[in-house]
This record gives sequence, C-alpha cells and structure tokens, in this order.
Amino acid sequence: MTATRQGTPLYRDPTAPVDTRVDDLLSRMTLREKAGQLNQRMYGWDAYRRTPDGGFELTDALHAETERFAGLGALYGLLRADAWSGVDHTTGSGARDGAELAHLVQRHVVERSRLGIPALFVEEVPHGHMALDGTVLPVNLAVGAGWDPALYERAAAHAAAELRARGGHVALVSALDIARDPRWGRTEECFGEDPYLAARLTEALVRGMQGEQGPDGLFAPDKAPVVLKHFAGQGATVGGRNSAESELGLRELHEIHLPAAHAGVRAGAAAVMAAYNEVDGMPCCGNRALLTGVLRERWGFDGLVMADGLAVDRLARVTGDAVSAGALALGAGVDIGLWDEGFTRLEEAVERGLVSEAALDRAVARVLRLKFRLGLFEQPCGAPPLPSPATGRDLSTALARAAVTLLHNDRGVLPLSAASRVAVLGPHADTVAHQLGDYTAPQRPGTGTSVLDALRHTGVDVRHARGCALTGGDLSGVPEAIAEAAACDVAVLVLGGSSARTPDTEFDANGAARTVVSEMTCGEGVDLAGLRLGAAQHALLDAVTATGTPTVVVLVQGRPHAVPEAAERAAALLTAWYPGPWGGEAIADVLLGRAEPLGRLPVSVPSSAGQLPVHYNHKETEYGGYADDSAEPLYSFGHGLSYTGFTYGPPRLSGRTVEVDITNTGERHGRTVAQLYLRRLVAPVWPRTLELRGFRAVDLKPGESRTVAFPLGGDRLAQVGAGLETAVLPGTVEIRVAESARRALTAVPVVLRVGQSFTAPDETPL
Amino acid sequence: MTATRQGTPLYRDPTAPVDTRVDDLLSRMTLREKAGQLNQRMYGWDAYRRTPDGGFELTDALHAETERFAGLGALYGLLRADAWSGVDHTTGSGARDGAELAHLVQRHVVERSRLGIPALFVEEVPHGHMALDGTVLPVNLAVGAGWDPALYERAAAHAAAELRARGGHVALVSALDIARDPRWGRTEECFGEDPYLAARLTEALVRGMQGEQGPDGLFAPDKAPVVLKHFAGQGATVGGRNSAESELGLRELHEIHLPAAHAGVRAGAAAVMAAYNEVDGMPCCGNRALLTGVLRERWGFDGLVMADGLAVDRLARVTGDAVSAGALALGAGVDIGLWDEGFTRLEEAVERGLVSEAALDRAVARVLRLKFRLGLFEQPCGAPPLPSPATGRDLSTALARAAVTLLHNDRGVLPLSAASRVAVLGPHADTVAHQLGDYTAPQRPGTGTSVLDALRHTGVDVRHARGCALTGGDLSGVPEAIAEAAACDVAVLVLGGSSARTPDTEFDANGAARTVVSEMTCGEGVDLAGLRLGAAQHALLDAVTATGTPTVVVLVQGRPHAVPEAAERAAALLTAWYPGPWGGEAIADVLLGRAEPLGRLPVSVPSSAGQLPVHYNHKETEYGGYADDSAEPLYSFGHGLSYTGFTYGPPRLSGRTVEVDITNTGERHGRTVAQLYLRRLVAPVWPRTLELRGFRAVDLKPGESRTVAFPLGGDRLAQVGAGLETAVLPGTVEIRVAESARRALTAVPVVLRVGQSFTAPDETPL
Repeated sequence: MTATRQGTPLYRDPTAPVDTRVDDLLSRMTLREKAGQLNQRMYGWDAYRRTPDGGFELTDALHAETERFAGLGALYGLLRADAWSGVDHTTGSGARDGAELAHLVQRHVVERSRLGIPALFVEEVPHGHMALDGTVLPVNLAVGAGWDPALYERAAAHAAAELRARGGHVALVSALDIARDPRWGRTEECFGEDPYLAARLTEALVRGMQGEQGPDGLFAPDKAPVVLKHFAGQGATVGGRNSAESELGLRELHEIHLPAAHAGVRAGAAAVMAAYNEVDGMPCCGNRALLTGVLRERWGFDGLVMADGLAVDRLARVTGDAVSAGALALGAGVDIGLWDEGFTRLEEAVERGLVSEAALDRAVARVLRLKFRLGLFEQPCGAPPLPSPATGRDLSTALARAAVTLLHNDRGVLPLSAASRVAVLGPHADTVAHQLGDYTAPQRPGTGTSVLDALRHTGVDVRHARGCALTGGDLSGVPEAIAEAAACDVAVLVLGGSSARTPDTEFDANGAARTVVSEMTCGEGVDLAGLRLGAAQHALLDAVTATGTPTVVVLVQGRPHAVPEAAERAAALLTAWYPGPWGGEAIADVLLGRAEPLGRLPVSVPSSAGQLPVHYNHKETEYGGYADDSAEPLYSFGHGLSYTGFTYGPPRLSGRTVEVDITNTGERHGRTVAQLYLRRLVAPVWPRTLELRGFRAVDLKPGESRTVAFPLGGDRLAQVGAGLETAVLPGTVEIRVAESARRALTAVPVVLRVGQSFTAPDETPL
Repeated sequence: MTATRQGTPLYRDPTAPVDTRVDDLLSRMTLREKAGQLNQRMYGWDAYRRTPDGGFELTDALHAETERFAGLGALYGLLRADAWSGVDHTTGSGARDGAELAHLVQRHVVERSRLGIPALFVEEVPHGHMALDGTVLPVNLAVGAGWDPALYERAAAHAAAELRARGGHVALVSALDIARDPRWGRTEECFGEDPYLAARLTEALVRGMQGEQGPDGLFAPDKAPVVLKHFAGQGATVGGRNSAESELGLRELHEIHLPAAHAGVRAGAAAVMAAYNEVDGMPCCGNRALLTGVLRERWGFDGLVMADGLAVDRLARVTGDAVSAGALALGAGVDIGLWDEGFTRLEEAVERGLVSEAALDRAVARVLRLKFRLGLFEQPCGAPPLPSPATGRDLSTALARAAVTLLHNDRGVLPLSAASRVAVLGPHADTVAHQLGDYTAPQRPGTGTSVLDALRHTGVDVRHARGCALTGGDLSGVPEAIAEAAACDVAVLVLGGSSARTPDTEFDANGAARTVVSEMTCGEGVDLAGLRLGAAQHALLDAVTATGTPTVVVLVQGRPHAVPEAAERAAALLTAWYPGPWGGEAIADVLLGRAEPLGRLPVSVPSSAGQLPVHYNHKETEYGGYADDSAEPLYSFGHGLSYTGFTYGPPRLSGRTVEVDITNTGERHGRTVAQLYLRRLVAPVWPRTLELRGFRAVDLKPGESRTVAFPLGGDRLAQVGAGLETAVLPGTVEIRVAESARRALTAVPVVLRVGQSFTAPDETPL
C-alpha cells in the first residue's frame, strides 16, 4: 500500500505501471472486496428499468448486488437488446441510450466501492454488438466462407467501436468453436471445420477489436478487449448436442480444436471463456491441465479466463457443492464467473481452506489489470463517438458478398440475364429476419434487404411467391409458386433454415408490420438429428423444378444442410449462409453477375446426417464408402465456383517457398482462392488426409497469369507429435495447391523430405 | 544349447519346463529360422489342392514358403471353407478331411524345418469354426443379448473341441470390439455397447475355449488357445467405417474399449490381435504404449500378439517402407504377422539395425512357447475325436433362445394362440442363410430351421408369402403378402438384414436347391450410412399392417436397425439378431409361448442414424434432445420384455452387498435379468449417466419372490481416474437395480459415499 506524494493512492496514479497499480490496489482490498471482483452473476437487464419519461432508474437488485460484494466485478449484457433479455428494441436511440445507461450504472458501482473500483461491462458481440441498432454482421460461418481475414479485421474494428460508443467494454466473441458436426445448432458461430482457417480469422478478430495497445497494454478508447469463446473443444460434443459433455481425446483437441485459440492468444487476446464441455474427463471450467497447463504455462497467456454461464456450478458433480465447485474452478485457472453461485462464494471457499487466498489474488489481479488497461479508473464512464453506420453497413455487405458461394452451375444458368423474367420463390425470398442468425438484436423497420427486394431494385422483371414456410408441411402456397415459375424464364428458389429466435415483428420497406412466426431450425439449443430441409421446402423444390423452368436454389442457412436433391435438380446452387441484413443485395449481385461469387466452403457439405462426420481433414484411411452412400461429402471443403475458370500449374519449390502459376482461362475477371494443403506421406503420427496450411485470394483478368508464393517457414509444416508437442517432425510431405480439398487430392504435388530415418524403439517404454 | 543325457536336445524333452525348452530351441536357431517363426503370410487354402481321388496334394506355393523360411511359423485358414477361401463346401467330410489335411501339411512343415518345429494352424472361430460342417453359433451380438456367460462358455468349449478335432490349433475369436456405432457392418461381431457385459462374455469365451491348463500352461487336446480380436478400440472408428482410422481418445479407450480385453487377459487368453485402427495417433500394430505399456507392463500379459491382416504393412506410412514397418511393429510388441510383407523381412530389419535381435528373440520365444503349450512337438498332428454334433446343435439353439428379445407387445398379441391362422411373411421368413451372419461357412442342404419351417412343424395353421427381398424396391410380391395377412388371424413379418456373403446355393428341407441372391447389408466391409430397413421392406410393413391384421414384426439382423415405423405399427416387435441355423426354432418357440423371451438388448436401438451415438453410458449431460428428434434411443440398452411381469423392491445395503427383492407379479413362469447400474453423483472425473456393473438372471414362478444379492467388492465401484489409472476414487455413488438402463434412470437408488472431501489444487500443475 503506497501513496504518492500528494496523498493520492498509488493505484490512482495513471503514470504508474499497471502492475504496480494492481499490486497497490490489491493490497488495500478485503477478502470480500476481492471476491466481489470475480463476480459476474447478474444479468445486466435486471440492473435497471425504464422510467415513464424515457430515462433509466437502477433496480433494488443492483443495489443489493453492489452492497453484498462492496462493488461489482463485471456486469453481463447491460446493453443487450433482444427477446432473451426482454429489452424492447423498437424505441429509443441505442447509442445515446447505451452510453447514458452505462454511465448511470458505472457511477453507482464506483460510489458503492470503498476503493472506487469500476465494473466491466461485458457484452455479446458475436457478429456485431447485440445492442439496439448495432450493425449486424454475417455470422462466423459466412465469415469463414469469405476466407478474407483483412476484411474481417476491419469489420471487427467497427463492431468494437460501436460497442465502446454504447458504453460497453468487453466483447464476448464466438471464435474458437470448430464446426465438426453440422447437427449442432451453433455451427453458425464457427469459422468452419478447419483449424488453420479458423486460426487466421481468430487472429483477425483479435487484431480488429483490440487494435494496437499503448504502453502497458492500454486499449484505445474505440477498441475492445475480447473474450474468445469457447475454450476448448466445444465443437466436439457428441452428436452435435449443445453443451453436452464430449468424448474428445487430447490428440483431437490439440490437432483440431486448439490452434485457433493459440493463434488468438498469440495475437494478444485479453480473455478466453472456459467452455461447458469436458476435456479428458474434466469440464473445461475445472480443467487445470487446460486452463493453466496449456493456456498459461505452455502458451504464456497472461489474460483473463471467464467461465461460461453457470458452468462453474456444474462442477458440483465433481466436488460435491457450489462452494467447492468455485474453489475447483479458481484453482484450475478460472478468474471470473458468469451467473453462477460458485464464484459468489469464494470468500467462503478461502475461509474453508478449499482454495488459497493467493489463488484468489491472482484472479483478482487479472480482473483489475484489465480495468486499468481499459482506463476505467481514469474514465469509468467514457464513451467515444459512434462510428458511421454507413461504414458498418458497407462492411457487413462486403462480408456478405465474400460469403456467397456458388456450389454448382452446370447448365450455365448463372449469371442471370438482366432481361430474364425471374420468379423469386421460397420462404427465404422476402424476409430479412431469417438472414441474421442467432445472437442478433432484432432490426428496426426497413433495415436490410431481402433477395426479393434486391432483385426488384435492379429493375429485373420479378414475380414472387413464398410457396411455403421454412418448417411444417403446409403446401397451400405451392401452386402459386408453380404458376410463377412456369411463367418465368428462370426461378430463384430461396430455401434454408433460420435462427430467428421468436415470433417477432418484422417491417417491410414501406414500414408495414407483419409477424414472423418462429421457424427456428438453428441457433443455440436448436440442434437437428436430420440435416434435410423441411418437408414443405422439399415439396416446393420438387414442384418448381418439375415445371422445367431452370431453377437456381439459394440456401440461406446456419449450417450445411444435406441437399442431394437440390444438387441434382437445380440448374445452379449457391449458399450465402446467414449473410446479415444486407445479404439479399449480395445474393442478387452474384445472381446477376454484378459481383463474382467469392465464397469457398468453410465446411464440408454432407449428403446425409448418416454420413457424418465428413470433415476433409479426417485421418488417412483407404475407406471405400458405405454400402448405401459415399463417405465423401456432397461438396468439399474449400469448394466454390467462379464465373470464370482457372488453371493451376504444378507447384515448385524455390528455397523455403512454394510457387504456383495461376491463370484465368475464362472470359471474365475473377478471383480464385488458392489453397495450400499438406499431405503427409510418411509421418511419425498417423496422418490426416490433407491439412490446409495456407490460402491466398488472387484476382485475375481474363487470360492473366500470376505466380503465387507460399512461404513454408514457421509452423507451416509442424504437426502434433507423440507427446502432444507441436513441432516439425521427420517425414515426407507433399505440398498441393488447389481450389478445394477434393481437387487437392488429385493435384500434382511437390514432395519435401524432412528429418531422419526410422529406428524402432526397443527397451525404452513409451 | 543343452542336450539330455541320451543326446536328445533339451527342447525335445517333454518333462523339461516349457521356458527351458524354449530357451534351448531358440539358442539353436539361425536368424532366418527365427524370422520364419514370425511369418504367417500364406493363406491356408493356397497350401493344398484336391486331387481327383478326393485326397489332397501340397502346392508349390507351400513348398516355396517353407523353403524360404526354413519352416513355417503359422498358417492361416487352412481349414476355412467359405466363398472367400474358395473352398468347395458341398463335398467331403469336414472333420475327417480337416484332420487329414492338417496332418499332411504339418508333416511337410516339420520335415522342412531343420529343428523339426511344427506350424500353428490358425483358424477363424468367431461363432463356431469356419470349417465345413462346423457348428454355427449365433453371432456375438446375439450372445450379448443372452446375458448368459455360463451358457456361452459351454458353447465356446464345444467350438474349440470341433476346431481341434479338425486339426486346427488356434482360434481367432471376435471378442474385444465394442459396438459404439451400428453403422459399422461388424457390429454383429461385438457383444454389445457395454464394457462390463462384454468383459463377462469375453471371460466366458476364454474359459470355454482354453479350459483349465495343465502344468506349465499345457492345453488339453480338445482346448484351443484364443486370439482375442481386436486390440484395441476398433469399435470406435469414425462414422462406423470399417478399419478406418479413429479419433479415439485415451479416456474413451480406457473406459469403454479396454475392459473386455483386460478381462480376457486376466482369464488367461493366449493371444490378442492388434487392430487396424490407430490409438492416439499410432495404429495399434505400431503402438508400443498400447501393446507393451498397457498390455504387458500394466496388465502383465505374457502371451502372443498377432497383427491383423496386412496391418503391419500399413505402418510404412509411419516409417517409410515395409521393412521398417515390420521393425516398428516388432519393437512395439507385435509377435507374429498376418499376410503382410513386413514380418517376412525381419531378418533384413535386424541386419539393418532397425530393431534388435533381442526383440526378435522375445517374439520368437512367445510363438514357440505356444507351440510347446499345445504339445505340438510331441504330437504335431494330433486331433481328438469330434464332439457330438447334436450337442453343438443344442448349444447353438440354446444361445439362439437366449437371444430372442421381445421389444414391445402392447396389444398382448404374443404369445400366439396355437389355434391362430398365421401368415408368415417377409424376406427372412423362409431362409436360413440370412440367419447366420458373416464369417460363416455355408451350410449343407437341410441344415437349420427357418421361422416358417419351425412354425409349420408345430402344427400351427401357417400361410406364407415372402412379399419382397431384403434389398431393392421390387414390390411385385406385396399383393400376395397382403392377401395372406388379410386371410389370417395374425401376421408374422420377418424382416431385417443379411450378412450372407455371396450369391449362394441354399437347400430347402426337401433338398431342393435354390440360389440365394446376394443381399448383403451387413458384415465386414458392409457399413451403412442409413439404418432403415430396405425400401421394399418398409412398403411391405406398411401394406401388411394396413390390412388390420395384428402384425408381429421379427427382426433378423446383425445390427440394430432404426425401426420407429415398426415400433409404431406392429402389435409386437422382437429381434433375434443373427440367431444361427436353428434360430427359426427359437423364434417360433417364443412366438408360441413355448419358450420365454429371454433376450435383453446389448445395444441401444436408435430411432435414426442422425441420432447417433446413442449408447446408454454416454457422459452425463442435461441435454434436452434434438429439435427434430429425441436424443434417447427407441429402445434402451438392457430392455427386453417377458411374458410375465416383475417388480423390483428398493435396493438395500447389507455390508458390502446390495440386495433387491424381486417378485414375479404375473401368471406365468418367467426370467428377469436384474441389472445393477452405478450413477456417480460426485466423482473426480466427469461421470457417465449410468454404468452397468452387475447382472443376474432370476427365474421366478408366478407370485414367487426372491432376494438377489450383488457384491460390491473388487472393482465394481472403480473408475478410470485422472491419470487413466483404474481405482476406487472418492465420490458419491448411487446403486440402482432395474430391468433396463432406461428404467434404472427412475429406479430408487441406494447411495454410497466413498473417500475424502475436495480441495482445489493450487501450486502443483497437473
């Protein structure tokens, strides 16, 4: 405990090093105050209510919370505006309101804290801040389809600036879950099935949101520390069952589920969230080997570990009660709880000797450090100006454009002629709500563009019939759709799934309200055993294609549905995932050839749920297929057609670089995404079929050629060895560069030999 | 090298200890002779051909093989008679022929060997010896349904005696694969999904086949050392894909896939077969941690490890070539190869320094030890008399009876009245070939009983129509089936799958031949992505049930098909798995109430492939189900109805024993299988929902009560701890006793507390 010359406590001196300030503050705190800093029990929307004059007042619940803990560690979701939070989203001005509300709550917290410690306001920002009028970005799976980390970094920076402008501090972001089972409703929150692609996008997310930090790790006022969700292996729960425990083995964890987290940590992520699932018999929140052994000791992570909601309390199955569950989590490496009881009773846990005060101090220091790095002691209620909404819209639309993936176009029906009469059909054709994905604040009237809107605005001769709903078996609208299709040159049939969370009100371009009935088939807690589209959608597909009118099927979805029928019957097939509010524009532009289809599949598209799993990077096997189906996916990871064509020359080694000549052989400008895969011919650990280890988007004019170079340094050739260490190990590696994983299997390789020859171990046990 | 007083080499002295004889023989052998003992490259059927007079002559291939290796380590499948081996099965007398053939080959081998070392004749005995006229037993999955280790032990003893009578020595037996994914075509070779049940049946198999050994491990002449297949984790290959590599984690391996192997080793199994799949990045054949660390060092196994067919050569992906692959396998703990090149080139591997001669010597010693234990040096060509075929038939039929499992009987249609007119329908109704399963020698004319045969023989008024084939969509036979069903009081519709391997000839009771077209939907290499019955079978089910005639569906199958429609529409549903040649009798007896339905499910029956995995013993989770389906199986592990009813009183602790009072509350004699499950309320490793740890079949007369006692000693309460050690760990355990896993979830528990309270680790990293 040290005071400056003027009598101000040292921790209040902004010129002192952060660690010094933390130590000083910690030394002044009681056990109870410390425990209070690790508490994030309350839902933010329970902290206030609206007054009749449109202002805010704080609730007794907040008073009780700050009283009990002599302050408040963090508050979750104060600014969240969605059905789940119960916050009315159709009134008020989000940005001004948010900053005002945050100011009011923060002032209260600081006043209630003997030492004037502000709270962290922790917010959901999975694809844009879930606040009223926050810019909604495409979901992560769509971002994964874009293969464009630089663009994503800019969009992430915008989302962070919006968060800070509304008074929030810390962004909860989906980043670490790997999409290994499309039955899982949270597949939309993943960057895809591949650890390398996910790692590059996680890095971009961290860099975009957190920016360059100042001396001592100080965040700029428009930057937000991230909590990367979820650490680790949540994409591996059995059967795609949400938050179910997993049978995940450590090798699978290290090879597939950890690389994105490691990349995020290397990029400086301020925090990670410990996941619900278990790893090797211990839920992540109680898993010291994971949270301390891997994260801190092996990777050198010095940030914050937050528990997932109520996850700490689940540990009572391991320890016997909530107090010891909190102790286990704290001892394992969790620093701050979420909604749970365990982390509200750490004072008791220390007093009972279940965990040391030193462990508590370490966690408190991490929470305080983040508050200092955010400058909250200097400006507890500061909020920078809101960035331009137009910029947000542009970034969201650009991400949507990058995500539109053309899966097949056999009959050359695309791009559509501007002179075509187009029947725009299907349950997704005329709605924006279903384009948004889960964890989205509802949109104001007129926000966004449906496919129908966008095509109409281009002046194309458009007819429209919805045909059927996303779910259920009501076929009454099918005849009208048949009639429209028959009367047109081409049908655009917009099908898919939806994560729109409730019966909700949506507004058309004229401001007319209509109720969107809940047709949720995806999102958190909405897992599917089957991956086919709804029965009515199938009937509509059958009926429309049977008219003989060439049909373009557009899939708007949060997971890859199994669509062998669409693949067979449609003249062209594309998917835009959940492309966000302006996704309709992006889709229409691709349909009309005003934009190139830039997307490449970040996940394999299965032909059926019975065929799962279908990742491209499964372990090497000579499996010949099921008796009743192929074991190969309908569409391969990395696949995505262009409106032009490319040839890839054979790769050649030039020093530690692989070079490939790529030529645009078509008659249009186009972009190819060159993908570098390893295939390990000989490896000390049994190899996967292919491993993505590089990608590069290349824009080429008709006839143009360019040499693309991939460096092979760093960890490009590394693998996870026998002891789970990541290293470049002896072996023989093929390098293949191709436009998809499937094409890589037949691409000409260049072969590299690394390391020494083999001798069998004899006397030494492994 | 020591000689006895008479100048006879010590290894030829039957009174000397086996280890002494082994050491002596080994000391006399050249490197090449040693390497030759580890060679099992040749297919037995390539070693001989039939002469026109019905005798045998040895082939040049055999001469070349024994010349090259100065003898022969082992010969695979000499007596195998099936389509795969190309051996004609419709002529000759199996037993006499076999012994004669074995004699001829063995004499040749011994003569070619400088030291007179006989060969091991290694034979497939997965459910009876695959020789001509070997008694076919029900497949393992049916044995699993019987929950009767004592009966199985007797059947295994019979199979071993048949093997030895035909001149074979060593039995390859399916025992260790755990059925975790019914898409896998080899599910039929598993005892089920549960490690405890599988362990008890593996023990019974080992005891039955090997019997009590004499001094120094000497096998009785009618007993056969077993090779337990497959070690380890082959049931965990992804997607149920045969021999594909796996993503199996070590915890899953230890908790689920190793207990049966450990039980087999404890019971004295002479050998295990190293599996194709990898474990933690290394294929089992090259996995020293598994084959030496776990198997020999932790478990103390001193028997033989055989590689699976060609599996050694696959290791070239790890080492670079076949020679070093052999070295890796040998160094890891494989003692003898199968069909591969690697183990034929160990001489070269030693000379190149890839593996030590000491490692080779250890493996050779194990092969020789088994030959001494079999008494082959004393009686290289001995064969005991064939046991009574009638006994074999009785045992096979008894196992079939034990396997017939009544899944539902809501409308009391079963047992059938003897006065009923019964329409016996479906592709399985009139055929024996489809009852047999994979790895079966074809049967002679008139062997076995179909369901139709059996019902006819009882004097029931039977009508018959096949209706459709197992596969394909030909519905031309459906109208006849409808007509027969409509004309009868009840329909028995026999559906399912088949592992009959080829277009084959079958004979009806009158000796008339007919060709059975291949309709293989199961068996090795026949995995399914979908688990529904064929389209024609579904149409037949719809049509027959639509007649209004109460319909009993009987499933004959090698895996649990997903049959929600049958569960809904049939008045009663039962499965007999592949019950063997006399399965028709067993089914008919249950249908008519002449026998009780004794079977209990050894696997969960899924409602769809999209719902997989559905094991009862998944990790504990609060999962609420898929949006489009339950996450619970259609029928639970352990389920099986009786024709009477039972009540189970609450369990009570009496010392280290749990007691339950069970009462037959119905009006018939019956048997219940009381199943003891653990549910861990608090455990240091995240618990599974339930764990089977005991079972007891109880026969009760109407109104009779009995107290059943389960001891809790030994490892009944043990679990696999954080370090993968198996031990009784601190925690709280519920004991539940019930008639199925599903019923156990709601059964009254008795609670046990074990061990100490919790303290969070602090400074010590895990």
